[in-house]
Amino acid sequence: MKPNFSLRLRVFNLNCWGIPYLSKHRTDRVKRLGDFLNRESFDLALLEEVWSEQDFQYLRQKLLPAYPAAHYFRSGIIGSGLCVFSKHPIQEFTQHVFTLNGYPYMIHHGDWFCGKAVGLLVLHLGGLVFNAYVTHLHAEYNRQKDIYLAHRVAQAWELAQFIHHTSKKADVVLLCGDLNLHPKDLGCRLLKEWTGLHDAYLETRDFKGPEEGCTMVPENCYVNRQELEQFPLGIRIDYVLYKAVSGLYISCKTLRTTTGHEPHSGSPLSDHEALMATLCVRHSPPQHNPSPTHERSPLISVLREAWTELDQGMAQGRWWATIAGYVIGLGLLLLTLLCALVAGGEIREVAVLLWTPSVGLVLGAGAFYLFHVQEAKGLCRARAELQHVLGRAREAQDLGSESQSALLLGQQEGDRAEEQ
Amino acid sequence: MKPNFSLRLRVFNLNCWGIPYLSKHRTDRVKRLGDFLNRESFDLALLEEVWSEQDFQYLRQKLLPAYPAAHYFRSGIIGSGLCVFSKHPIQEFTQHVFTLNGYPYMIHHGDWFCGKAVGLLVLHLGGLVFNAYVTHLHAEYNRQKDIYLAHRVAQAWELAQFIHHTSKKADVVLLCGDLNLHPKDLGCRLLKEWTGLHDAYLETRDFKGPEEGCTMVPENCYVNRQELEQFPLGIRIDYVLYKAVSGLYISCKTLRTTTGHEPHSGSPLSDHEALMATLCVRHSPPQHNPSPTHERSPLISVLREAWTELDQGMAQGRWWATIAGYVIGLGLLLLTLLCALVAGGEIREVAVLLWTPSVGLVLGAGAFYLFHVQEAKGLCRARAELQHVLGRAREAQDLGSESQSALLLGQQEGDRAEEQ
Repeated sequence: MKPNFSLRLRVFNLNCWGIPYLSKHRTDRVKRLGDFLNRESFDLALLEEVWSEQDFQYLRQKLLPAYPAAHYFRSGIIGSGLCVFSKHPIQEFTQHVFTLNGYPYMIHHGDWFCGKAVGLLVLHLGGLVFNAYVTHLHAEYNRQKDIYLAHRVAQAWELAQFIHHTSKKADVVLLCGDLNLHPKDLGCRLLKEWTGLHDAYLETRDFKGPEEGCTMVPENCYVNRQELEQFPLGIRIDYVLYKAVSGLYISCKTLRTTTGHEPHSGSPLSDHEALMATLCVRHSPPQHNPSPTHERSPLISVLREAWTELDQGMAQGRWWATIAGYVIGLGLLLLTLLCALVAGGEIREVAVLLWTPSVGLVLGAGAFYLFHVQEAKGLCRARAELQHVLGRAREAQDLGSESQSALLLGQQEGDRAEEQ
Repeated sequence: MKPNFSLRLRVFNLNCWGIPYLSKHRTDRVKRLGDFLNRESFDLALLEEVWSEQDFQYLRQKLLPAYPAAHYFRSGIIGSGLCVFSKHPIQEFTQHVFTLNGYPYMIHHGDWFCGKAVGLLVLHLGGLVFNAYVTHLHAEYNRQKDIYLAHRVAQAWELAQFIHHTSKKADVVLLCGDLNLHPKDLGCRLLKEWTGLHDAYLETRDFKGPEEGCTMVPENCYVNRQELEQFPLGIRIDYVLYKAVSGLYISCKTLRTTTGHEPHSGSPLSDHEALMATLCVRHSPPQHNPSPTHERSPLISVLREAWTELDQGMAQGRWWATIAGYVIGLGLLLLTLLCALVAGGEIREVAVLLWTPSVGLVLGAGAFYLFHVQEAKGLCRARAELQHVLGRAREAQDLGSESQSALLLGQQEGDRAEEQ
């Protein structure tokens, strides 16, 4: 790489709100999105909530000349909704589907059926290995009483772990997507602390868009204003995050966000705002890393917080499994009683009538039990991974700055396994 | 690293057959396994089918002095059954649960409930980054009519992809586990070709164990001899596979396999045989890579074969989903008819009696439909990833050996996206 090396990259991100039959003006919006992406010719366009594969295929055809590479990430029953269009060849891609993603019985929320995931693309640009990730985490339906909080924290952790383990040889890491997390939410802090990713909105000196960088704003005609009652300016839940390896420096030259209206026609492309970032990767002289002691503290504190959240979620999952166990027992008792009544010829019709709900009760409670056992296991798995990282971070802090670098490089063997 | 650097590593692998209440002499075998591992003091012991977390905790306590680090990989409803004991500190760990893993309605096979997975451990040994993977793929119940073939191929692909994407900075890669694949099976060839892993049994000059390296042998008293009718010597489905980066050379000095009897007491530790490998990692001078033209051909041919298998699995998944769709329709019709009969007062009792099976039919077919839609999506995802790799491998072959290295390094941009 030349010393005056510089790579400019224009990135687009949008949650497209593309639910067939439910999202307003979907066909028209997808068409206008295609026109817009063709006009702007970004290096990379990362999209979420493209729930219909037909929409992806339509965009694929339309964008083929300007974006010869594309991929749709399939998962779950409905799909992940994630797709990507790239001006540059995609060298490799894969995906990771989150272990936990809501509850199947919350049909009206629907997240469980989607198979929310993180998609990875490996690009080779200007001799650099470029890992781009696109994701969409579980939605937040009630901020005051968020029953999905533990799941979203577990997803943020899995996302961070996936990036951590798959980007070890990448020169540049980019993550775009709808995190369904406010900037100060636990999941968002956990993700940033564990991966070391920087937030384009906080880093750039040239931002144009709604106040506080909001990506869901009341000005957008598709947004339910009631949902934003507590946030008069809107909320920021869509992100462009990035980092580069030592020896490279990445910065966000400009960040533009739509403001509730599509830049040209005035009508919005989605209920979310689009993010358009111009990133610049440059050669940088090796820098002295700030003492890790100071860097470890926020990691430790956020890991602790996440541990507690996952632990509570686990306890709740086990509680539901226990309740379901009792209901199964009761249902079986009821069924036995009904059988006895039918055999004895007493209130036969009523007994037969009650047969259906009883069988339904036992089967439903059985499924509920199995689901929550699996939920508790999933949360326990995330907690164990997190606990291990916490243990290592604490040791690194305790050992003081002198021997830390050595420990982080794994030269020291004072480690203890993670099991509680 | 010193030029005369050499690292010796003793590795143990065993499918423990630890199904509570079902596996014979489980408690005794776990106890003897603990004694054996303590006596032998391996660097790394990787175990499968430790289904009971109590068994893991028992071993953890027992092995603590000799193996201070340990981890149990939790997943699914029952668990992944995978765990690991290490003499050396575990720097990092994570896991990937396979998207497809049999059918929930095949309760007697049970694989679906297990959450089969691959676990990753990162160790730092002698200044080297050492990625150790442990896995267990879906069982084969009927080799002549294997309804799980597409799932196992998809698992082998996901396993290979997980290793490929998470080991890019590893110096040494080790994979141990019960693949439920014979050496020449499609999944095994796919895994080896895409990851470049070598088979300890085929590589070592010093093997002691059953003929042809079999890991399930008729001599083992726990093995169902009927299942091995077609294979009088037994079958080889458990593996130790490895590779090292350029500049390092890894070889298997010795490979020992139990022979249906535990080495000391004579009674077997499991229905599978244990693998004990002594690996040696040395510094090696940079070698001239053989022309990739010749190396690509087997990859292309195995990718093609796997593509066809996944495609067939996908078609079958969609066919089942369609059938389920018809059954749902019929069930709904039947329910409407029954309601009409009850309302009209005709054959009321029979109608009420038929209500339960009809509701069950609709709900069952609904679940069946959703499951097979998700199955088809999972297979389609694996097929798309595989197709992309196939496309790139073909281009590399077509371009001839001269420009191949450059293409493999991603310098060339003649790539096309993967979508069909």
